[in-house]
Amino acid sequence: MVIVMKPNSGEKEIREITKVLEQLGLGVHISKGTERTIIGVIGDKRVLCGVPLELMPGVEKLVPIVESYKLAGRTFKPEPSVIDVSGVKIGGKELVIMAGPCSVESMEQILEAARAAKKSGAQFLRGGAFKPRTSPYAFQGLEEEGLKLMQEAKEETGLLIISEVTSEKNVEIADKYVDMFQIGARNVQNFQLLREVGRSQKPVLFKRGPSTTIDEWLNAAEYIMSEGNYNVVLCERGIRTFETATRNTLDISAVPVVKSLSHLPIIVDPSHAAGKSQYVLPLSKAAIAAGADGLIVEMHPNPRCALSDAAQQLTPEEFDNLCKDISRIATIIDREFKYGG
Amino acid sequence: MVIVMKPNSGEKEIREITKVLEQLGLGVHISKGTERTIIGVIGDKRVLCGVPLELMPGVEKLVPIVESYKLAGRTFKPEPSVIDVSGVKIGGKELVIMAGPCSVESMEQILEAARAAKKSGAQFLRGGAFKPRTSPYAFQGLEEEGLKLMQEAKEETGLLIISEVTSEKNVEIADKYVDMFQIGARNVQNFQLLREVGRSQKPVLFKRGPSTTIDEWLNAAEYIMSEGNYNVVLCERGIRTFETATRNTLDISAVPVVKSLSHLPIIVDPSHAAGKSQYVLPLSKAAIAAGADGLIVEMHPNPRCALSDAAQQLTPEEFDNLCKDISRIATIIDREFKYGG
Amino acid sequence: MVIVMKPNSGEKEIREITKVLEQLGLGVHISKGTERTIIGVIGDKRVLCGVPLELMPGVEKLVPIVESYKLAGRTFKPEPSVIDVSGVKIGGKELVIMAGPCSVESMEQILEAARAAKKSGAQFLRGGAFKPRTSPYAFQGLEEEGLKLMQEAKEETGLLIISEVTSEKNVEIADKYVDMFQIGARNVQNFQLLREVGRSQKPVLFKRGPSTTIDEWLNAAEYIMSEGNYNVVLCERGIRTFETATRNTLDISAVPVVKSLSHLPIIVDPSHAAGKSQYVLPLSKAAIAAGADGLIVEMHPNPRCALSDAAQQLTPEEFDNLCKDISRIATIIDREFKYGG
Amino acid sequence: MVIVMKPNSGEKEIREITKVLEQLGLGVHISKGTERTIIGVIGDKRVLCGVPLELMPGVEKLVPIVESYKLAGRTFKPEPSVIDVSGVKIGGKELVIMAGPCSVESMEQILEAARAAKKSGAQFLRGGAFKPRTSPYAFQGLEEEGLKLMQEAKEETGLLIISEVTSEKNVEIADKYVDMFQIGARNVQNFQLLREVGRSQKPVLFKRGPSTTIDEWLNAAEYIMSEGNYNVVLCERGIRTFETATRNTLDISAVPVVKSLSHLPIIVDPSHAAGKSQYVLPLSKAAIAAGADGLIVEMHPNPRCALSDAAQQLTPEEFDNLCKDISRIATIIDREFKYGG
Repeated sequence: MVIVMKPNSGEKEIREITKVLEQLGLGVHISKGTERTIIGVIGDKRVLCGVPLELMPGVEKLVPIVESYKLAGRTFKPEPSVIDVSGVKIGGKELVIMAGPCSVESMEQILEAARAAKKSGAQFLRGGAFKPRTSPYAFQGLEEEGLKLMQEAKEETGLLIISEVTSEKNVEIADKYVDMFQIGARNVQNFQLLREVGRSQKPVLFKRGPSTTIDEWLNAAEYIMSEGNYNVVLCERGIRTFETATRNTLDISAVPVVKSLSHLPIIVDPSHAAGKSQYVLPLSKAAIAAGADGLIVEMHPNPRCALSDAAQQLTPEEFDNLCKDISRIATIIDREFKYGG
Repeated sequence: MVIVMKPNSGEKEIREITKVLEQLGLGVHISKGTERTIIGVIGDKRVLCGVPLELMPGVEKLVPIVESYKLAGRTFKPEPSVIDVSGVKIGGKELVIMAGPCSVESMEQILEAARAAKKSGAQFLRGGAFKPRTSPYAFQGLEEEGLKLMQEAKEETGLLIISEVTSEKNVEIADKYVDMFQIGARNVQNFQLLREVGRSQKPVLFKRGPSTTIDEWLNAAEYIMSEGNYNVVLCERGIRTFETATRNTLDISAVPVVKSLSHLPIIVDPSHAAGKSQYVLPLSKAAIAAGADGLIVEMHPNPRCALSDAAQQLTPEEFDNLCKDISRIATIIDREFKYGG
Repeated sequence: MVIVMKPNSGEKEIREITKVLEQLGLGVHISKGTERTIIGVIGDKRVLCGVPLELMPGVEKLVPIVESYKLAGRTFKPEPSVIDVSGVKIGGKELVIMAGPCSVESMEQILEAARAAKKSGAQFLRGGAFKPRTSPYAFQGLEEEGLKLMQEAKEETGLLIISEVTSEKNVEIADKYVDMFQIGARNVQNFQLLREVGRSQKPVLFKRGPSTTIDEWLNAAEYIMSEGNYNVVLCERGIRTFETATRNTLDISAVPVVKSLSHLPIIVDPSHAAGKSQYVLPLSKAAIAAGADGLIVEMHPNPRCALSDAAQQLTPEEFDNLCKDISRIATIIDREFKYGG
Repeated sequence: MVIVMKPNSGEKEIREITKVLEQLGLGVHISKGTERTIIGVIGDKRVLCGVPLELMPGVEKLVPIVESYKLAGRTFKPEPSVIDVSGVKIGGKELVIMAGPCSVESMEQILEAARAAKKSGAQFLRGGAFKPRTSPYAFQGLEEEGLKLMQEAKEETGLLIISEVTSEKNVEIADKYVDMFQIGARNVQNFQLLREVGRSQKPVLFKRGPSTTIDEWLNAAEYIMSEGNYNVVLCERGIRTFETATRNTLDISAVPVVKSLSHLPIIVDPSHAAGKSQYVLPLSKAAIAAGADGLIVEMHPNPRCALSDAAQQLTPEEFDNLCKDISRIATIIDREFKYGG
């Protein structure tokens, strides 16, 4: 960290700050410029937690030099992580596709979705059981019943199961059914929930929030990892901007940025980013071309009858085309995806 | 709601849509323009939940005409609501000021803060016991112990107590101590938590999220109200924008906009909006001048020793000046605030 | 357009509005819902320019049904446009790549850049002669001298020339040298300038502004087209959001959205979007995979010596790799790009 | 400026950078931390223009310590500037109000507006003659004819005249009529135009752009000032955010932030920020309470007949109430405004 002093500050203020830092065991490096004096602080900044240097006399501002997350960063672990979910590896050469309806609605619906997902090559079945919806008057999910239906679909198809958890209570319930927890965008800074899944060893798909910076997102991932669960896969799903032509603005740059800052794998959710099924295919191709490790895509046997987010769910045919296209792109960017499973 | 048809759609598509709507008991009104045909849908749109009209053949888009929240809206209740919190009324003529430290740290600190708050005229003592922090390595609050310290401060000063709850579990704990729950910006769409406080009758201060539109915020308030708890006070605390000179961008317009759309009272949190204590006074004055029903302000007996958000907490002296200024503005905008209590 | 009436409005207000509309030769269609009455307006809305219906008694709001741009829209021209620039076609099967330094600096520099661009297969040489820079103390471009140097590079390599114009005056100057004008992001709503290039027949590369919605962008394109110049190619170059890890946030979705709303071709500028050369390759691949018709990329023979935007310019080697990768992706998405020219 | 080195960089890279800096006459200060080495650069950074240090081997990033604008900053001139416009002082104790229609439409309209403005106490008449409009099919202003009408209104009422200029050509025309140039939000980075008004000595009202940071805005002001014209008054008019309930989001915090960074006066335009006349009064009061030096407000003798921006223009009666309220607030914040002139 660097402390920038005000133009009119003097020796006395610098001495006072130096004293505080040295008492905390930190090193100090003073550099006098033509317009400002700056103080470099050397050592583990965690001892500064709760020491409001910015309020000391003469201080103009503090400039962080090193990022505040540790376990999620490349400095901590330079080589990319590969997360093993019940045998399927995320972050390796193989691309991973998760597909299924926004909400689990019935045995028939989820089975049909699972068969379609399996047939085209997806490794995971997604489906919402606990649904956070903007309006309280909208369908809120089948809850545990939905998870049981997913498990039956898993038994038939062999697909792994991923589903969103929205509270500490339903982490406990979902734990019995899912291969991977999903933390949704609205809960990206629900730290109690992050801690809860952090205390498990089950892999977590961790979505970015609509107004979360990449730096905050990696700090939030740190909540999960600092509890001991390193099996975190990030998921970019669009951020909120002034543009309203799409539901969110897919931050495609987040893929290479996260890859340069963190060792964690990252996949992309084109469905929530676009909000319209017609844009899901081009965004999926873009995501894979940009280096994403996979996709999570909404697909419904009959989108016209969907109980939630109908407009953004692909039909099984559209999804099949997507998988075909992804498998072709995979080959030329040195990745793999087995179309048709 | 209005259904806009594609330029190339025909009678067949219109008939099909009409059939679906009429089967649901809705009225239909067709209007053929020079470039598009539009279909007006008449009746209670809640029967359309889960009917994805936007996917029917020939449909270009749906245009909502009426807002989706009910209980929070002016149509439901035209006159402004006044929320009674243990005798203090929010939304009436009197302005309400809530003040106190970001985090409760010790008996001495909270007592000193409470005395200063009381002396200048505040009606509420605020203080964080359960602290959601961006980094897991930062101070996370004293939890129940903190609430007990606040209660002692209440006993001495008579101030009402408000504190943030971040999970269903700590709603239960906080219920024993606080006069008003606070839902923080990060939990604005934590619907499980909203439902939980909705099942209580205790008043709720409900902060806007950093990327929540006013429409979504009122819909989220609906989660609390639809459980039966109408004692909701809204709190604008800044939104996330591209500007980095302040921690957030205070959306001052939200004050008159909320007042025109909703009957709920609205107060302003200038401390989190600004992120720097030097801007808290001008923003507080602006908020009151714009019509806010009160303020929630961070104040610490000794900000330099604060364990969290030191830069944005006022000293007791600064807070006293703020109360003095607010009381003077109050008189000329036909409100009241008793400076000095 | 649909006029939404206030809940408490009555027959009198509706009659008054009907009268105004009918006097203007517009048709009227009234639809009474359970909560609101809406009035559909039928006919050419341009007669309403300057008729502030939203201020008439009883009116709650106006809801536009049809977009306000005409010439740039798919309704006006359903099939995609292919823009011919001195024989190179943009928007057809072949992908177009424009490359060159941020600023033209010297004969040697621009020649070296042109040779490298040509060698890898680019069809256009880009280079800034009139540089709009955030600070007045930064290098502002060689102006006409720079354009002359580009022309020499064109003579040697056969590359077409594109350069930014920033005022009516330099449109006149640049017209003698360039094959295509570029309108930069800062001038997206400099309507005088748009009109000026609209009065020419020379093709225009028209960049989106950092805070321009797609709808506003297409309306701004209409300024150029309504003067008679239909040779417009759009260029997405990133929008301003809260994320600071990249210079701008590339709105990759703009590619399929523009393709669905407009017949104009669209290319992508990954260099200004990313702001860092390390992200240019993944973003370029993403753009092409999403369906862009080409790229405009900053490349400098020696980025370390660049006089502007050094951090985002590729070396000739990096650019060569980019062209190689693009040519491979092209084949599998049914496009073409001849790597190596 | 501070240069942050990569974790794996060594002595060789540091030596190389040191050499470059010293050759340019800059001082160097090296500070080795536990995770990173940082290099403080001492001296006038303008010699670094065009030296891309960020591309040198071993460099992770550059961190600016001092802002890049000079003339607009408090370091250059600590005491606030008061700008004299034909005898009216902006930035002093007296608040300044500029009022008038969005567009000048006719002699009768502008005269009526001027009389109303004068009667309530405004010092300036505003009115658009050159109108930049989002759609080319909208009314584009009366141009020079409009300015002549304003001059007649000035002769009758004694109000000073302010009007927007949108190109170098109309600076020349407007110069004959106006007391103060206005640069609109769309031209905040039209540097040619800024230079042009910078070469005049006539005061300039300089609006912030919808996606301009305060730092960029002050740098753009520097374009005007570096040409010798120091008579710049800033104007906050709302920024673009995700919120759509208002036309723009008024960044009220910009008032105290600009006051702390710059010596230039700042006024607020509540009309463009709100986009709806009903929010203009509360936002005006907020702006003055926050410390703004004045307001520029749209007012039309008959908003229902306005040719542009009808929804946001006040009636003369509403404007009169605004002036009355402002004069009352002025007294309690130690400012002055003579209601009724």
